[in-house]
Amino acid sequence: MTSSELFEQIRRKRSFLCVGLDTDPNKIPQRLLSEDDPVFAFNRAIVDATAAYAVCYKPNLAFYEENGAKGWESFVKTVRYIRDNYPEIMIIADAKRGDIGNTSQMYARAFFSQDLADGVTLSPYMGRDTVDPFLRFDGKWAVILALTSNPSAADFEMQRLEEGGYLYEKVIDVSSGWGTAENMMYVVGATQARMLKGIRELIPNHFLLVPGVGAQGGSLEEVARYGMNDRCGLLVNSSRGIIYADRSELFADTAAKKAAEMAAQMAELLSAHGL
Amino acid sequence: MTSSELFEQIRRKRSFLCVGLDTDPNKIPQRLLSEDDPVFAFNRAIVDATAAYAVCYKPNLAFYEENGAKGWESFVKTVRYIRDNYPEIMIIADAKRGDIGNTSQMYARAFFSQDLADGVTLSPYMGRDTVDPFLRFDGKWAVILALTSNPSAADFEMQRLEEGGYLYEKVIDVSSGWGTAENMMYVVGATQARMLKGIRELIPNHFLLVPGVGAQGGSLEEVARYGMNDRCGLLVNSSRGIIYADRSELFADTAAKKAAEMAAQMAELLSAHGL
Repeated sequence: MTSSELFEQIRRKRSFLCVGLDTDPNKIPQRLLSEDDPVFAFNRAIVDATAAYAVCYKPNLAFYEENGAKGWESFVKTVRYIRDNYPEIMIIADAKRGDIGNTSQMYARAFFSQDLADGVTLSPYMGRDTVDPFLRFDGKWAVILALTSNPSAADFEMQRLEEGGYLYEKVIDVSSGWGTAENMMYVVGATQARMLKGIRELIPNHFLLVPGVGAQGGSLEEVARYGMNDRCGLLVNSSRGIIYADRSELFADTAAKKAAEMAAQMAELLSAHGL
Repeated sequence: MTSSELFEQIRRKRSFLCVGLDTDPNKIPQRLLSEDDPVFAFNRAIVDATAAYAVCYKPNLAFYEENGAKGWESFVKTVRYIRDNYPEIMIIADAKRGDIGNTSQMYARAFFSQDLADGVTLSPYMGRDTVDPFLRFDGKWAVILALTSNPSAADFEMQRLEEGGYLYEKVIDVSSGWGTAENMMYVVGATQARMLKGIRELIPNHFLLVPGVGAQGGSLEEVARYGMNDRCGLLVNSSRGIIYADRSELFADTAAKKAAEMAAQMAELLSAHGL
């Protein structure tokens, strides 16, 4: 998927919502547990309910791996379902992989060679060797952790460097030279919205994947104020706030409602930015 | 597994060899391709051939994930085979995971709740939230990336901090306070052997997992000189140098020979250190 296709979808849907599919088998409504694959059944219902409001889905691989081979199958079925029914929607595998050389190439192939994702989240700790193999696939994205929304982001990401600036700024500055705004995105937590101003000075054109709105306390309005560019440039993720908003049989209806609420706010913010 | 059990095994086998199971389906001898699970068949042969010389196996998850659900099954079967036949041998899942909160907990459960590994490699970029969930399992290990053996380790790991020292030293210094030498290890590449001296000043007692000997040019002797402590404190990994030393039908015999050669060198180094 190109950035233009993504932006086109954002304009059409008036939304830059990414729905996180952090599907925990223990949080699925009772009724679905009798299905062959309860995780897939849950995801399918969530996807059908939210596809009108979402431009991206982000399956969180940890939740699938915890179920072993069966979990990987649930992940693959979910992706195939989205591809077949909503082919315009981006899929980012939230895997936070980060290895080197032929191992990194294996991870890239795991997700891209069978089109299981448009992008994969990557940890930059080991440097360029981690990212390069992901950039060799046309139309695919490396989504690099920059400044995350968790409290312990301060441990290392916010270390000040001898040459000036924070580590996360160095990560953005150096790594943005490895690819382009057409094949790299950055993860910036919504709880760090004020940092988005400085980040936009480094990378005015890149899309940012922004978790942490809602449950973690980030403000959508601040994210838009400091992070939106002239092609939106934002994918704001919500996981629990949508998929677990209602744990009853009505979970999909409530998920649709919550996604619609976020999309309505996003439509206003897009309009306010003349988009 | 405790550090004492690991050290006891090292003393008994006169080896601190970790064999990396980076099993690429494309590099498996022809004959095995007719087996139900060629990757498992290859691993079983390698394990049987090298178990006398290895104190640890390190399956590299990328190579299994690239095969999707089937690959995960090959990984699980390999682990079960090692557990059943060589229960004294440590297993480190080389997964380089790194996420936070309930996601990190899911990854920890994926590997530990069914005893699929004694340790998991983790990327420290997102800070303490990444590591904590792995430390809540008794007898299990968080194996933190510190200073890796790849050329682009210089990109970020070797950034100098304003407060002094390198980022990787900060990672070691801070993170070693989150657990103990009984539940944390560090990855230090053999190509960085001279840095081991400074690292041993920070963490005299922790085990270090050392890749990069052989194929990547690191020297076993230097690793021992700068990194060995009074309970060995080293697991030196070799992957390709053992499992792909011979691509013919004789691959297992050659793997045994290569592992035996490394173990013989290690026995000498242990003796030279009075162990």
